[in-house]
Amino acid sequence: MKLNWGMIGGGEGSQIGPAHRLGAQADGLFTLAAGALDADGEKGRAYAQRLGVAESRAYGDWRDMLAGERGRDDRIDLVTVATPNATHFEITKAFLEAGFHVLCEKPMTMTVEEGEEIVKIARASGRICAVNYCYSAYPMVREMREMVRAGALGKIRLVVANFSHGHHGDATDADNPRVRWRYDPAMAGVSGQFADCGIHALHMASFITGDEVEKLSADFASTISSRVLEDDAMVNFRMSGGTVGRLWTSSVAIGRQHGFDIQVFGETGGMRWASEQPNQVYYTPVGGRTQIMEKGEAGLSSEAARLSRVAIAHPEGFPLAVANIYVDLAAAIRGEARDGLPLAEDGLRSMAAVAAAVASAQAGGHWVDARPPMFR
Amino acid sequence: MKLNWGMIGGGEGSQIGPAHRLGAQADGLFTLAAGALDADGEKGRAYAQRLGVAESRAYGDWRDMLAGERGRDDRIDLVTVATPNATHFEITKAFLEAGFHVLCEKPMTMTVEEGEEIVKIARASGRICAVNYCYSAYPMVREMREMVRAGALGKIRLVVANFSHGHHGDATDADNPRVRWRYDPAMAGVSGQFADCGIHALHMASFITGDEVEKLSADFASTISSRVLEDDAMVNFRMSGGTVGRLWTSSVAIGRQHGFDIQVFGETGGMRWASEQPNQVYYTPVGGRTQIMEKGEAGLSSEAARLSRVAIAHPEGFPLAVANIYVDLAAAIRGEARDGLPLAEDGLRSMAAVAAAVASAQAGGHWVDARPPMFR
Amino acid sequence: MKLNWGMIGGGEGSQIGPAHRLGAQADGLFTLAAGALDADGEKGRAYAQRLGVAESRAYGDWRDMLAGERGRDDRIDLVTVATPNATHFEITKAFLEAGFHVLCEKPMTMTVEEGEEIVKIARASGRICAVNYCYSAYPMVREMREMVRAGALGKIRLVVANFSHGHHGDATDADNPRVRWRYDPAMAGVSGQFADCGIHALHMASFITGDEVEKLSADFASTISSRVLEDDAMVNFRMSGGTVGRLWTSSVAIGRQHGFDIQVFGETGGMRWASEQPNQVYYTPVGGRTQIMEKGEAGLSSEAARLSRVAIAHPEGFPLAVANIYVDLAAAIRGEARDGLPLAEDGLRSMAAVAAAVASAQAGGHWVDARPPMFR
Amino acid sequence: MKLNWGMIGGGEGSQIGPAHRLGAQADGLFTLAAGALDADGEKGRAYAQRLGVAESRAYGDWRDMLAGERGRDDRIDLVTVATPNATHFEITKAFLEAGFHVLCEKPMTMTVEEGEEIVKIARASGRICAVNYCYSAYPMVREMREMVRAGALGKIRLVVANFSHGHHGDATDADNPRVRWRYDPAMAGVSGQFADCGIHALHMASFITGDEVEKLSADFASTISSRVLEDDAMVNFRMSGGTVGRLWTSSVAIGRQHGFDIQVFGETGGMRWASEQPNQVYYTPVGGRTQIMEKGEAGLSSEAARLSRVAIAHPEGFPLAVANIYVDLAAAIRGEARDGLPLAEDGLRSMAAVAAAVASAQAGGHWVDARPPMFR
Repeated sequence: MKLNWGMIGGGEGSQIGPAHRLGAQADGLFTLAAGALDADGEKGRAYAQRLGVAESRAYGDWRDMLAGERGRDDRIDLVTVATPNATHFEITKAFLEAGFHVLCEKPMTMTVEEGEEIVKIARASGRICAVNYCYSAYPMVREMREMVRAGALGKIRLVVANFSHGHHGDATDADNPRVRWRYDPAMAGVSGQFADCGIHALHMASFITGDEVEKLSADFASTISSRVLEDDAMVNFRMSGGTVGRLWTSSVAIGRQHGFDIQVFGETGGMRWASEQPNQVYYTPVGGRTQIMEKGEAGLSSEAARLSRVAIAHPEGFPLAVANIYVDLAAAIRGEARDGLPLAEDGLRSMAAVAAAVASAQAGGHWVDARPPMFR
Repeated sequence: MKLNWGMIGGGEGSQIGPAHRLGAQADGLFTLAAGALDADGEKGRAYAQRLGVAESRAYGDWRDMLAGERGRDDRIDLVTVATPNATHFEITKAFLEAGFHVLCEKPMTMTVEEGEEIVKIARASGRICAVNYCYSAYPMVREMREMVRAGALGKIRLVVANFSHGHHGDATDADNPRVRWRYDPAMAGVSGQFADCGIHALHMASFITGDEVEKLSADFASTISSRVLEDDAMVNFRMSGGTVGRLWTSSVAIGRQHGFDIQVFGETGGMRWASEQPNQVYYTPVGGRTQIMEKGEAGLSSEAARLSRVAIAHPEGFPLAVANIYVDLAAAIRGEARDGLPLAEDGLRSMAAVAAAVASAQAGGHWVDARPPMFR
Repeated sequence: MKLNWGMIGGGEGSQIGPAHRLGAQADGLFTLAAGALDADGEKGRAYAQRLGVAESRAYGDWRDMLAGERGRDDRIDLVTVATPNATHFEITKAFLEAGFHVLCEKPMTMTVEEGEEIVKIARASGRICAVNYCYSAYPMVREMREMVRAGALGKIRLVVANFSHGHHGDATDADNPRVRWRYDPAMAGVSGQFADCGIHALHMASFITGDEVEKLSADFASTISSRVLEDDAMVNFRMSGGTVGRLWTSSVAIGRQHGFDIQVFGETGGMRWASEQPNQVYYTPVGGRTQIMEKGEAGLSSEAARLSRVAIAHPEGFPLAVANIYVDLAAAIRGEARDGLPLAEDGLRSMAAVAAAVASAQAGGHWVDARPPMFR
Repeated sequence: MKLNWGMIGGGEGSQIGPAHRLGAQADGLFTLAAGALDADGEKGRAYAQRLGVAESRAYGDWRDMLAGERGRDDRIDLVTVATPNATHFEITKAFLEAGFHVLCEKPMTMTVEEGEEIVKIARASGRICAVNYCYSAYPMVREMREMVRAGALGKIRLVVANFSHGHHGDATDADNPRVRWRYDPAMAGVSGQFADCGIHALHMASFITGDEVEKLSADFASTISSRVLEDDAMVNFRMSGGTVGRLWTSSVAIGRQHGFDIQVFGETGGMRWASEQPNQVYYTPVGGRTQIMEKGEAGLSSEAARLSRVAIAHPEGFPLAVANIYVDLAAAIRGEARDGLPLAEDGLRSMAAVAAAVASAQAGGHWVDARPPMFR
C-alpha cells in the first residue's frame, strides 16, 4: 500500500518541488494526497489538482491543510515542508505536534533556539522529523560512510569539503530577487552562502565519519559589496574524534557549477566523492594506487546496494538521491530502523554551526563552540 | 488524469523492470494498472500485486493480459514489452493489432522480416509502436540533435560512436547463463554484442544527424573462443547525407564500465557526449576552444529544457532518460507530436543493420546495403 | 663524454626541430656538432651557427654534410633525419652506407621497397637505424609493455587505438600549403592521415604486445572533398598472436586536440594510456576496480623508472619522450642493448601496413596481408 | 654563446638536481661549468666530473667554489643553490656579494630577517637573485597572469589555491629521515608543510593577480601526533587589492599525488589551472560556458607562446617549467627585462607569510600582518 503524502510549498515553477514529487513517487511508495503548494492560495489549489490531488485536499494554506488533514482517517502519513526558510520552524512544529511525520527542507530553522525546540517536540511526539540533507542518500556516499565506519581508512585525520558554485557571481544580476534575498538578513537570517550550501557539506562530514563538529573558526566575505551576508566562506573545524575539518563554500566561484566534493583522509587511506559525478568514489589505500569505485559494482555494502536502482555505469542522479530519502522515510514510517536518515538533531547541529561561524567570523576568526547548547 | 499502464516481463530481479517502473511513474504520468511480469505466472501475479496492481489485472501470461485488458473500459493505454528478445515480435504484434499503444524493448524483433511486419501493422493500426532507445532521451542528446539539425556544425562529415564494456570479459564466467545466452544463436539470433549494444549507438547516429545508415562494412570477433556470436565488433558505415560512420562495440573491454560515447564532426564544429557523464556535452567550434555545455544551462533548446527536471549541475541519470521516453509517450498518446520518440521504423532499421553487419563480417568486410528492403 | 650529433632538416620555424634538439641535449648526452638544417642552404648554415655549430660544420646541404663529416676524426656519432618525407630514404641510406648511426623521422620511406632496402642496408652496415616512434618512449608506455609482456593481462585479445585530431578540419584552410601537402599524392605518397598519425598507433600496438600486424581491412574517407588522400581512416587488423585490432585516425575530428590513446584488453585485465595525459595508465584487473597508475610510483618496472626524471605527479611531456629515444640511442651507440628502440624493421612494417590499408580501402575493405614481403 | 653555470647541491640521487640540470641545459643556454654537488666533497667532485665538469671546477665545498670561481675570467654566470634549506641564506648571500647571479631554491631563507638581508644585498649588488617558484613559469600560468592583468576577469574577488599530497601520510614511515626532517623544527624551522608547499601556492596567487598578501589567518594541524610542525594547514588571506584568498596545503591527503591547483575568480569570469595537467586552463566568462584553453592554441599571449616548445596537445611538463626559469634567467643576465622571474622580494614575502601563519595559528586564528616589515 502506498503511503499518503502531502506537500507544503514547491509550487509551479519552484526548483525544489519537482525534486520532491519525483523523489516521493519514483519508487511508487507515496501518493500525493494533499498539498498547499503556493503562497497564492488559488494558484496552489489549482496546481495541486493538476497534479492529481483531490479538490478537497488541495488547500490554499498550510493552516487549512493542517486543519483538514488532522481529522481524516486517510490523513497524510508524511508532510514535506518546502516553503521559504523563515516558515520552516512554524510549519514543522505545528505538524509534528499534530502527530504527522515531517520532512523539512534545510535549513530546518532560522535560529538555534528554534532548532532545539523542534528537536524536543519531535522527541516528545514520537514522530519522525527528517531534514532533507539529500546528498547523504547517494549510494556512493553511503558506501563511504560504511567503509569509514568499518575502519577502512583507519582513524580519520582530516575531512576537506567544498561546496561552491558561481551562479551568484554576476554583480549585474545581484538585485534579481531570486538571488538578492539570500544575502539579505531580513529574509535569510544571519548567514548567506554558508547557511545555504555549507551546511550540506558540514552535515556530510559528520554523516560519513560519525563524529560531530565541536568547534570552528570562520572567515566570511561579501565579495559583491552590496551584500550584507557572506557569499564566500571558509570554515575550519574540529570534530569529536579529533578530526580536522576544512570547508570552503562560495557562490561567486564562476566556472564551478555545483562543486560539492568531500575528501576524507585517514591513517590508512583516503576517499573522494563529488556531487557532479556522484556514481564514483576515488579510494586510495595508503601506499597503494587510487581505485575508482563504481555504484553498482560487486561487493558494495548493503546500504549502497539497497539505494541503487540500475546496473553499474548507468548513472543515477540527484532526483533519485532525494528519492532515497523517501525510501528511508517510508521504511521508518513503517517502523523499520533507518539510521542514515537525517533528523531534527542534524538540522539543529547545522543551525548551531551557522551561529558559531557567524560569531567566529565577526570576531576575527577565533574558535567558537559549534555544538547546540542542549548537546554540550 | 494518469494514464493506465501495463507491463509484460520485467519481473522481480530483472534489471530492466525497475527502470521501466521508475520511468513510467517518476513524473506521475502513468499508473501501473496491469501486468504479466514473469514467465512463472504465479510469481508474476504475486509480484504485480505487491507492486499495487489489482488482483484481477495481475495476469499469469501475456495472452491472458491481452484477453483481459482488451474488453475493459479502463483498459491500459500503453503496454511495455520487456520480455526475452525472441518474444518481442509476437507480443508487440498482438497488442498493436488489438489497438494498444506499445513500448517495446530493443531489439524490436529477431529478423528484418518481422520488423517490416511490425512497421506495417503499426502504420495500419494507427497505434504508437515505440522502441526503447532510451539514450536518445537524455536532455543533452536532444540538445545535440537540435544543434546539429539547426546547422551548428555545418554539414556533418563524420560520426564516431563507441559502446563498449568489459562485463563479459571474464572467460571463467562465460558459461554463466546470464552471460552465455547473448552469444548463443539459439537464444540471441544472428548477432551478439552488436545487436545488444551496437544498435543503440547506430540509432543515436541517425537520431542526432537525421540521416539514415545506407551501407556498412563490418568486422566481428569472438575473442572468447567458446562463443559462436561476436563479443567485439567494428562497423564502418555511410549515411544518407554522405556522412562517414565508425562504430566500435565490445563486451570484453575490461575496464570500460559502460563506454557509450558519440562524437559528431561537421564542417564547422564537433561535439561529444558520453553516457557515463550524460549531463555534459563537449562542443568545439572550428578554430575555437572546446566548451563544456551543461544540462540546465541558460539558452538550451526547448527540447533539452523540457526533458530536464532539476537545476544545472544536479545530475540526472539513466532512469530519468527512460522516464523521458514515457513523457513523450504520454504526450503522443494524447495526440501531441513528439518527433523524438523512437518508433517501429527505427527498430526495423536496427534489424536491417544487424543483418547487414552479419553478412558483411561473414563475407570478409565487403560493403552491404543496410537499409530495410521496404525503405530502399 | 658527450656524443657528437648532427641534424638534417629541422630548421628555423619547424615544429620537429626543437623537439629533437631538446631531446638530444636535455640529458647532456649529445652535442649538436653538425647540421644541414634548411632547404635554403644559407639560412640553414646561419641558423646552425646560431645554435652553436662551428662554421665549418654548418652545412648548406646534406650531401655536403655527408662529405664533410665522413672524413673527420670527430665525426658525428648520430645523424637525425628530419627532412620532408620523400627525402628520408635517400638520406638515411646514404648515411647508413657511410657508417653513421641514423635516427630517421617517420615515415621512414615512401614505399615498402625502399623500406626493405633500408632494413637490408642497416643490417649489412651494423649501424643503428632508428625511427622516431617517440610515443613508445614515454615511461608509462614502457610500463604497459613490461606488464603486458610479463602476462599481467593474460593473453591479449584486443587492442583499440585512436589517433585523431581536428587541426585539418577547417575546409577554408585546406589550401594552406602547410596542410594541403599531406593530402596530395605528389608530396605525401599513397596515404594521408593514416601514414601521418595512424602508423604511430599501429607501431604502439606491436610495441606493447610484442605481436606483429599480419593482415588488415581498411576504410578511408576524404571528408573534405578537395582532398585526394584520406583525412579519416579506420583500420581493423589481426596480429600474430591472434589479437584483434581496431585503429581509428582522423584529422577532421574537430575538438580532439591530439587524441592518441591506446587500450589493450586481455584475458585478465585491461589498460589504457592517452598521449595528452601521458603520466597515467588506467589498469583494471578482471573483476576488479580500475586503478590509476602514476609515473614515478613505487614498484614500476626498471624500464619505466629509468626513463623518468622527476618525482611522481610532476608531469613529464612530449619533449622528454623524444629525449628518451636519444637516451636509448646513446646507450645503443655505446653498445648496450636497448630493445625498446624502434628500428628500421618497425619503419618497414609501417610502410607495409600503409600499402595494405590503401589496397584494402580501394578494394572495398577486403582483408590484405600487412606484412612486408621480406618478413612473410 | 652558452652561459656558464654552476650548481651547489643537487648531488647524485637528489630529486631536485636532475630538474635543474635538465632545466639549465634543455634549451642549450647554459653549460654546467662548475659544481659543489654534495655535502660529501669527494662524492660531489666525482659526480660533477661524470657530468662533464672539468676537474679543476669540480669543487668539494661551496666555499672552495666561491674562491675558485670568483677569480676566473670564464667564471660562472649563474649559480644555483639547491642545498638543504638552512644553508640557502649563507650561500646565496656569499655569492651575491661576490657578484654572481643566483638562483636559490625555496625557501630562500629560514627567517624574515635573513630574507630582508638578501633583498638588500641583491639590490645593492645589482645582481639577479631569483627564487625557484618554477610553477609560475608554466606557459599556461603565464597565460592566466596575462589575462588577469589585462582585465579578462575584471577585478579579482577571490583566489582559492590547494597544494596537497599524501606522500607523508603513512605514520609507519614518519620516522624515515627523508620525511621526518620536514616536521622537525631543528631542521625545517618554524613551519612544515606550509613552508614546503604552501608558499608555492601563495606566490602564485600574487604572481597571477599582481597583488600582495597583506594579512592572513591560519589553522595548523599535526595530524600525525609525533610531528612538532604542521602537516596540514589552512590559510585565509587578504590581498592588497582587496582580494580574498584561501589556501589549503597538506601532506597527509592520501590519494592526492601533487594536488596543486589554483582558481581565480573575478567580476567577469573565473579560471582554473592544475599542476598535474599543466597544459590546460579552464576559463569561464560570467554567464557563459567553461572553455578549455590549451597550451599552444592560436591567440595566446606572447608570454605563453614564448615559453612553449612544441605544438598544441603535445604536453610539456615540470622539467620544462624549470627550464623556463632558466630561459628567463639567461635573458635577464643578458640585460633583457623579464618581469615574470621570481626574485628575492618574492622569497622574502614567502618568509613573512610563513612567520605570520605560524603566529596566527598559535594565537588561535587571529589575523596577522603578512607583509615583510621592510615593505609595510
